[in-house]
Amino acid sequence: MKFSCEKAILQSAVLIAGRVVATKSTISALEGILVEASEDGLCLSGYNLETGIITRVEAQVTQPGSLILSARLFGEIIRKLPDDVITVSTEGNSVHITCGPTSFDIMGSPADEFPELPAVDDGSSVTLTQSALRSMLSQVLFAVSTNESRPIHTGALFEVEDTTLTLVAVDGYRLALRREPFIRKFGMNTFSFVVPGNALTEVERICADSDEEIIVTLGDRHVTFQVGQTLLVSRRLEGEFLNYRQTIPQNNPISLHVDTSMLQLSIDRASLIINDKLKSPLRCKFEDGSLAISSRTAIGSAFDRCPIAGNGQGLEIGFNNRYLMEAVKAAPAQEVRMELGTPTSPCLLLPKEGETDNFLYMILPVRLKAGE
Amino acid sequence: MKFSCEKAILQSAVLIAGRVVATKSTISALEGILVEASEDGLCLSGYNLETGIITRVEAQVTQPGSLILSARLFGEIIRKLPDDVITVSTEGNSVHITCGPTSFDIMGSPADEFPELPAVDDGSSVTLTQSALRSMLSQVLFAVSTNESRPIHTGALFEVEDTTLTLVAVDGYRLALRREPFIRKFGMNTFSFVVPGNALTEVERICADSDEEIIVTLGDRHVTFQVGQTLLVSRRLEGEFLNYRQTIPQNNPISLHVDTSMLQLSIDRASLIINDKLKSPLRCKFEDGSLAISSRTAIGSAFDRCPIAGNGQGLEIGFNNRYLMEAVKAAPAQEVRMELGTPTSPCLLLPKEGETDNFLYMILPVRLKAGE
Repeated sequence: MKFSCEKAILQSAVLIAGRVVATKSTISALEGILVEASEDGLCLSGYNLETGIITRVEAQVTQPGSLILSARLFGEIIRKLPDDVITVSTEGNSVHITCGPTSFDIMGSPADEFPELPAVDDGSSVTLTQSALRSMLSQVLFAVSTNESRPIHTGALFEVEDTTLTLVAVDGYRLALRREPFIRKFGMNTFSFVVPGNALTEVERICADSDEEIIVTLGDRHVTFQVGQTLLVSRRLEGEFLNYRQTIPQNNPISLHVDTSMLQLSIDRASLIINDKLKSPLRCKFEDGSLAISSRTAIGSAFDRCPIAGNGQGLEIGFNNRYLMEAVKAAPAQEVRMELGTPTSPCLLLPKEGETDNFLYMILPVRLKAGE
Repeated sequence: MKFSCEKAILQSAVLIAGRVVATKSTISALEGILVEASEDGLCLSGYNLETGIITRVEAQVTQPGSLILSARLFGEIIRKLPDDVITVSTEGNSVHITCGPTSFDIMGSPADEFPELPAVDDGSSVTLTQSALRSMLSQVLFAVSTNESRPIHTGALFEVEDTTLTLVAVDGYRLALRREPFIRKFGMNTFSFVVPGNALTEVERICADSDEEIIVTLGDRHVTFQVGQTLLVSRRLEGEFLNYRQTIPQNNPISLHVDTSMLQLSIDRASLIINDKLKSPLRCKFEDGSLAISSRTAIGSAFDRCPIAGNGQGLEIGFNNRYLMEAVKAAPAQEVRMELGTPTSPCLLLPKEGETDNFLYMILPVRLKAGE
């Protein structure tokens, strides 16, 4: 194998393919990037047996071939080489990398040791802008469960309907839902699938904040995300995802509006005396025009007041401070509607009346004991 | 105790005094800041039994008193309060902190549990600009020894002479020296002392990049650094500091000039295949107009070439990559003079001919074996 490529191009490709490479594995090939040079250019692949990334770049290939290179070492070398054309040539498993006066000799592994990436048949697909999917993911993934006892909830649900894609994540204590119109779809009229949270974290990273497209294609057991010359392949999670529509309370008697930045500051302050050892719920008392947040632990007590628009009718309700904070932070609006029922029914964060119905966060309350 | 103070003023004072507070100690008072309110304003102290910091700020004191507050918790509370006037009042050991609608109740400890800071008599002193001392420290402290078997070398030597202050740090493998003129001195004509590296790291941090003064005062067993309303007290290290002048080789036969940024890049690249497990010296070959740097470990081999001005006469010499890098990085000049003798004698980094003689870095070589 022998090829030449501009440093910036090669560096960006190694970074992308390297994202899913295992940092430490008993199978050394899994710590590597598969580099394949052919007449069509260069193809770099990383694969951790769950998520794979294949990215293609242009390169001047003078001798086709393939080899596995350590993702860490190859990445470091490329990063530190001068901004110039890099030439990579191999002889057996040894690799010679040169750029200007600088050169490296390192060892690679035979390409056939690289695990085969799953082949994905073309199925139904949905296309969105990268920026839309990126913001949806960033506002939903925090609520993906990390509890392996319900594997299906360690992923996020994609629901493709008439004109919109809905993403949902749940973890037993909360639910996050984001909805956006897509550009186009292909295949079935409605379809849904669940993608592991870890893979989606990588999807979020390969999405730029741009109007360029990302195509999400459903295979039998896998799903692919295509961004320009980069393809991410992930397995799908099998099982029954929560019938989330049934869990969302309707006709909540209390509805009020709150500024999310102000509420974040109040939660932050009232959480100061709570830590991993000294857990305590936030006691939220929704009054007429203001929300009183307080907490009490062995360290001491904290009290803050946040303005609200509306009357909370004196409802006192307890929340896990982290869950409430993460929902308020994720909600994509400066001002949100809060809907509440009783001290034991979930709290909803929603868009203001009359605004696009594109998000919903639900947080289950914590039962308050006297003195908390 | 009861006082009111602007958030920004109190926050900065807590940050400064909190710098030397132990994060975890069996003596809980050492995790605290001593807060003393009097007619003169507020005085905050932190002390870890080695280094102490006392800082004074203006505050409206309505009831004098003193108490120890947890540096971490008090710091966090102040940081997260709104930008407004903060009022702190105590009743016994309980502390009430309010700011606008926000309030906290936490516990403090009686002031008499705070260890007494050493009293330092006024002795000889030297005054220089904060920016001068800060840059001197940043360019010398990396070479302070961490080996406790020679305690005196875990500090840096201050030498006050006719018109200049010289700072020197050594560990067994290298030496860093920085010299700057001071503004004025008081007391003895020449004096010298050794200050622990840890305390000097804090001195570097409390120095701003400004022309304002810092006064360094020598006591019998301690030394103080006075910056505006902040005083840092450190114990002195006792013992015989290396007679460093004798260790610096004179009349080196090889003298050449090198660009420090270019040399850093070359060292960085040649060090890529060296790690904590796979140690290897950098093989430096000084030729006519260029320096060839190479290394070889089980991972592979690296080669780079850096331009130099001068003739290295083919000298081959080995260096620990980290020691060479740290000296080249610290040297305060874009271009430095390198002086070399034999493969077993130290390498010097010095200012170019004709420039102010204000720094000297010395690195001991590593013996090269065949094949390295």
